[in-house]
Amino acid sequence: MKKKLTSRAQDYAQWYNELVQLAGLAENSGVRGCMVIKPYGYAIWEKMQAELDKMFKQTGHENAYFPIFIPKSYLSKEAAHVDGFAKECAVVTHYRLKNSSDGSGVVVDESAKLEEELIVRPTSETIIWDTYKKWIQSYRDLPILVNQWANVVRWEMRTRLFLRTAEFLWQEGHTAHSTKKEAIFETEQMINVYAEFAQNFMAMPVIVGLKSEKERFAGAEETYCIEALMQDGKALQAGTSHFLGQNFAKAFDVRFTNKQGKREFVWATSWGVSTRLMGALIMTHSDDNGLVLPPNLAPFQVVIVPVFKDKKQLEEISSKVNSIKKSLEKIGVSVKYDNRDTHKPGWKFAEYELKGVPLRLTIGPRDIENGTVEIVRRDTLEKKSYAISDFENQVKLILGEIQENLYRNALSFRKDNTYEANTKQEFEELIKKGGFVYAHWDGTSETEELIKQKTKATIRCVPFNTTKKPGKCLYSGKPSEQLVLFAKNY
Amino acid sequence: MKKKLTSRAQDYAQWYNELVQLAGLAENSGVRGCMVIKPYGYAIWEKMQAELDKMFKQTGHENAYFPIFIPKSYLSKEAAHVDGFAKECAVVTHYRLKNSSDGSGVVVDESAKLEEELIVRPTSETIIWDTYKKWIQSYRDLPILVNQWANVVRWEMRTRLFLRTAEFLWQEGHTAHSTKKEAIFETEQMINVYAEFAQNFMAMPVIVGLKSEKERFAGAEETYCIEALMQDGKALQAGTSHFLGQNFAKAFDVRFTNKQGKREFVWATSWGVSTRLMGALIMTHSDDNGLVLPPNLAPFQVVIVPVFKDKKQLEEISSKVNSIKKSLEKIGVSVKYDNRDTHKPGWKFAEYELKGVPLRLTIGPRDIENGTVEIVRRDTLEKKSYAISDFENQVKLILGEIQENLYRNALSFRKDNTYEANTKQEFEELIKKGGFVYAHWDGTSETEELIKQKTKATIRCVPFNTTKKPGKCLYSGKPSEQLVLFAKNY
Repeated sequence: MKKKLTSRAQDYAQWYNELVQLAGLAENSGVRGCMVIKPYGYAIWEKMQAELDKMFKQTGHENAYFPIFIPKSYLSKEAAHVDGFAKECAVVTHYRLKNSSDGSGVVVDESAKLEEELIVRPTSETIIWDTYKKWIQSYRDLPILVNQWANVVRWEMRTRLFLRTAEFLWQEGHTAHSTKKEAIFETEQMINVYAEFAQNFMAMPVIVGLKSEKERFAGAEETYCIEALMQDGKALQAGTSHFLGQNFAKAFDVRFTNKQGKREFVWATSWGVSTRLMGALIMTHSDDNGLVLPPNLAPFQVVIVPVFKDKKQLEEISSKVNSIKKSLEKIGVSVKYDNRDTHKPGWKFAEYELKGVPLRLTIGPRDIENGTVEIVRRDTLEKKSYAISDFENQVKLILGEIQENLYRNALSFRKDNTYEANTKQEFEELIKKGGFVYAHWDGTSETEELIKQKTKATIRCVPFNTTKKPGKCLYSGKPSEQLVLFAKNY
Repeated sequence: MKKKLTSRAQDYAQWYNELVQLAGLAENSGVRGCMVIKPYGYAIWEKMQAELDKMFKQTGHENAYFPIFIPKSYLSKEAAHVDGFAKECAVVTHYRLKNSSDGSGVVVDESAKLEEELIVRPTSETIIWDTYKKWIQSYRDLPILVNQWANVVRWEMRTRLFLRTAEFLWQEGHTAHSTKKEAIFETEQMINVYAEFAQNFMAMPVIVGLKSEKERFAGAEETYCIEALMQDGKALQAGTSHFLGQNFAKAFDVRFTNKQGKREFVWATSWGVSTRLMGALIMTHSDDNGLVLPPNLAPFQVVIVPVFKDKKQLEEISSKVNSIKKSLEKIGVSVKYDNRDTHKPGWKFAEYELKGVPLRLTIGPRDIENGTVEIVRRDTLEKKSYAISDFENQVKLILGEIQENLYRNALSFRKDNTYEANTKQEFEELIKKGGFVYAHWDGTSETEELIKQKTKATIRCVPFNTTKKPGKCLYSGKPSEQLVLFAKNY
């Protein structure tokens, strides 16, 4: 028998950890804080990558690759940047091992010490702007619209699979522009690309907004973000896009000759999403039976489980299944046929429920006779019998329904857990309860810090798309321009 | 004006370095031995990745991701393995920076020293087999057919763009099997996948064979390889597939319960190709005018350059070009239309010749009148005028011809530069001249080393697909079972 998941109500964090491992998504490795992304988890990440990559290319970006190592002196060139990352840097100091003189094994060869230490990239602004200096002379060389898919390392003390790991996979876009306006346009465009991806592929509604100064990326002038609400009432920052102003251009002396022949500093943006999205995906849709995947990101959208007593029955079923599989694949539906005879149907049902496959199709000897199949939707667990030809026609429709249903459910969950607080007391009660809490804030880091100390809530963002309703800060009583979004967060 | 390439005859190494940089493929970074892969170079690598990934999946493999760091103790568990890699390991010793007490900048925080040093992976057998231990209990868990796309670091002292860099990108397949036979089948299957890829996509003929013991992967029982001949008469190892026996299973104590209920060690393979293939591609086809790309790997197969005097002419041409572009894209041909008015047609011709675009299409006002286009093939530099409709029909044919022609040329170059040596003197003259030299060898590492000392030639492989003609070793006079392949190499 399979191990049963801890329920969400019982212990949400425990449920999450078990689910990630039991569904074959990821596991901890022998290296502190670094995870192994298992094939099924990686297949979901590959789907995310493929869709995002397409969207980046459609908006004119190209991929490139920059070194994993950053000389310590590069990292130090932008003051706020190094302050933000220094405390979590993995540092390479030597480039050789040797046999120990006492024969006890392999040790670091002290004679192979690097003159300058190298940092395993926590993010690549510095190495990239050192490179862009060589690429940019004139306005003709701009814009540069480059993205890289890479691994990065931030030495986090408390790690959790996908959500916070010492090494993670991500993409980081780094663009260079001749005007501030163009750079801001790019920053906004990319946060909207992320929002669109979250909504259309992850079926995850997000709030788009600006970070407060305190929560801004180290080295940015403005950080735009998308924020999602998880089932336990905590917020998760799912993607960020930074307007970097001329900070990195100044740190690395990157100037261009404009059309008037004058030298100017270049304007920059950077933007990224990471394997953290996997955590967001899991915590948006899954249930006590396991993972629930939106069809647009499922490694396979339909799993077919045969029910048979003997080899002859299996052969009959398989011949029918192969034709169903072919016609589904023809219309772009991905199908897995699990005809293993080492596992019982019941075991398989539990397995694919755990793995969140959107549709499960069961077919046995009686179905063959009747020309029917039994379908179970993962989102509703609803069971229904179809004539085979009917099902083939409707499968895309059903998958579309599941995708929409997941989004609708997540949206209504968010709606039910979004509040506006009008007094300090109300605010603190709501934050304790969990969810998104809109409240007035005076715009100062001091008040923000005070609120965090008292309630553990942080400002998730100053949202766009809200009416600018002025009011008074709940904590300081000073005037506030608009409601901002508070929550406890991952 | 563009800088002119050094010719191959003048200085092959210099030609290569200039070409890689001028064609926008890669450049050196500020980090010793680490390269920046530029967008155009990365686009070729992406094409390679996509095709290889498809072939891996067709042969039943899945992707996953394992940590970039390997604890020093893991690396040490397989004796031959650590011997092979210890001298080129980047070692992480600390996990934090801090402000120096004298205010001079950021320094390593000595209080954040790791208990055990971490090695930036030079290859992942050890961390993966530490993981497989958790995945494998019974024969039902086998085979495991996993691949990862990743960056690796080997601290090479002398580096060259793509050919030998401290950091490079690659894929590494790591499979686990219940029988020796199955593992050997896998090893052979994957070297054949590589050979097929080299031939059908890179248009690069390769010799498939076995490495001698001396050239074997550190930790392998057998290493299979594909070897290609570069234009300067040197060999390049383009891919390897290793039969690892039970070495890593023993080092990490990975056993399974077989069908009879007995515990056995698991059998292993690993196999990889890297961004080194970019170097092989360049040195197989390119000429003194620049890069020459096989259509199957070109980021865009056709470039269209308009010739115009004014805006009105450009508009007329563009409207025609857009319809050509659409109909070509419809049949799966990738097209770039370079309508920039900041560069003259002559500049663009040189640029796309340098970048190796298979077909260049020029279209001017007279072409619009006559319904014609001018086509230049990059491989032959042949110029021809076509009726537009004719061209649209034939473009796939022409691209196919280019792909074949490149392969045919490379094959005939190899044929012309492959020799059989019957005496020591003849062998040494041929090696000096350059090319593939078949010769008899007694099978010992001593003779192999002696030959290397005297001639700088190494055994590239003991080729399959040759008749086993016995003879006598040219150096020791001892009996030899078959001819083996010698060459100087990259």
